[in-house]
Amino acid sequence: MLYLISIGLHDEKDMSIRALETARKCDKLFAEFYTVRLDTDANKLGEFVGKKVEELGREDVENGKKILELAKTKDIGILVGGDAMTATTHISLLTDAKNMGIETRVIHGSSVYTAVCKTGLQIYKFGRTTTLPRNGTPQSVRDVIKQNKKRGLHTLVLLDIGMHAKKGLKNLLSKDITEETEVVVCCKLGGDEEVMKYGKIKNLLDDKEIEKTPAVIILPGKLHFKEREALELLGD
Amino acid sequence: MLYLISIGLHDEKDMSIRALETARKCDKLFAEFYTVRLDTDANKLGEFVGKKVEELGREDVENGKKILELAKTKDIGILVGGDAMTATTHISLLTDAKNMGIETRVIHGSSVYTAVCKTGLQIYKFGRTTTLPRNGTPQSVRDVIKQNKKRGLHTLVLLDIGMHAKKGLKNLLSKDITEETEVVVCCKLGGDEEVMKYGKIKNLLDDKEIEKTPAVIILPGKLHFKEREALELLGD
Repeated sequence: MLYLISIGLHDEKDMSIRALETARKCDKLFAEFYTVRLDTDANKLGEFVGKKVEELGREDVENGKKILELAKTKDIGILVGGDAMTATTHISLLTDAKNMGIETRVIHGSSVYTAVCKTGLQIYKFGRTTTLPRNGTPQSVRDVIKQNKKRGLHTLVLLDIGMHAKKGLKNLLSKDITEETEVVVCCKLGGDEEVMKYGKIKNLLDDKEIEKTPAVIILPGKLHFKEREALELLGD
Repeated sequence: MLYLISIGLHDEKDMSIRALETARKCDKLFAEFYTVRLDTDANKLGEFVGKKVEELGREDVENGKKILELAKTKDIGILVGGDAMTATTHISLLTDAKNMGIETRVIHGSSVYTAVCKTGLQIYKFGRTTTLPRNGTPQSVRDVIKQNKKRGLHTLVLLDIGMHAKKGLKNLLSKDITEETEVVVCCKLGGDEEVMKYGKIKNLLDDKEIEKTPAVIILPGKLHFKEREALELLGD
């Protein structure tokens, strides 16, 4: 049996009771941190769960053979940050397992996709999400932001693993997104050091705090007055 | 201090360790089930946390005065299904608290917004989300589905509290959404009785299983072959 066990938003304390109980009954536990990197590691997770946790490399997850071979006869758990189902590579693991006749179970966890609404931006006003790579901004990312904006919708921009928001903001600058554009930046959502900032890009670029990771950027669409009020309270 | 404590997706076991620890240290605990109704209740939550939990009515949450008055001098926790931040009424509670000088903290939880990706549909291909009321389908809901579809995006259709997917599907039928339209239905996501179905509406309408709640309907946009493969494995 293969268990995909979500750790949740910030660190091992965001594991649900269901996740913890499931992890404890697995014969063998792995963790991967290349789809989402949290404020934890294999050792901390192992101590928390009370069981050895072995870190998997990208290749082990994307190929999946080694894991699936083990899951044929043993209860194998893979711990992953956020909600496991937001990474397509985990969906592939599930379908590969099903095709091999291996039973699967997913334990869900908290995720940045909903946590960003702590900014006051309403979830049903978000359009499609996009991910910004570290080496510049592909046209596809600009298109998503533009199309959402046209419909008055917010865009959640996820950042490449380990990338901080300042670099992300610089990458986004263009003729459409200028230093005058208002954005929201969230770092370490759900943790004690959580940072949420709202303002013009030029004002945020000087802010040391937005260098914390993990981070996301939001390009707001048309703001409801309630959303604006909430955003303006963020700094308090 | 006001704590908004997410319970998560399905029942009390979806509370995170952080949520449980936070709930245990509150002076007074409330719960509300009118924004999201899970497979739990105030008594079960109370037993689980080891503390009395008082259920709040809609009025208590939307008005908020009673709670905020208490939170001026005590640590007050409100337990809510899914991720607390997906309900705009909770965002209003936070802003009202801030305006009154009351400190706030949000503990996040797993949510249907990400859990639906267990169907194999990829999260970055979802457009805007919409909610279907029980008395028919407003034009605004049709517009969201249509605009997403035009861009090849999936639409997550949330259902009014207590409403089952069969009623939702019947409400959606129109000249654009016919009995031949392919949809995905998920019920009780994250629980042992989880149901996920993919097929034409006419085939799903005969299926007793899709009467379980809570439920959501997804109108798929353009499917990637990997998404189609995953959806077709759902029945297994």
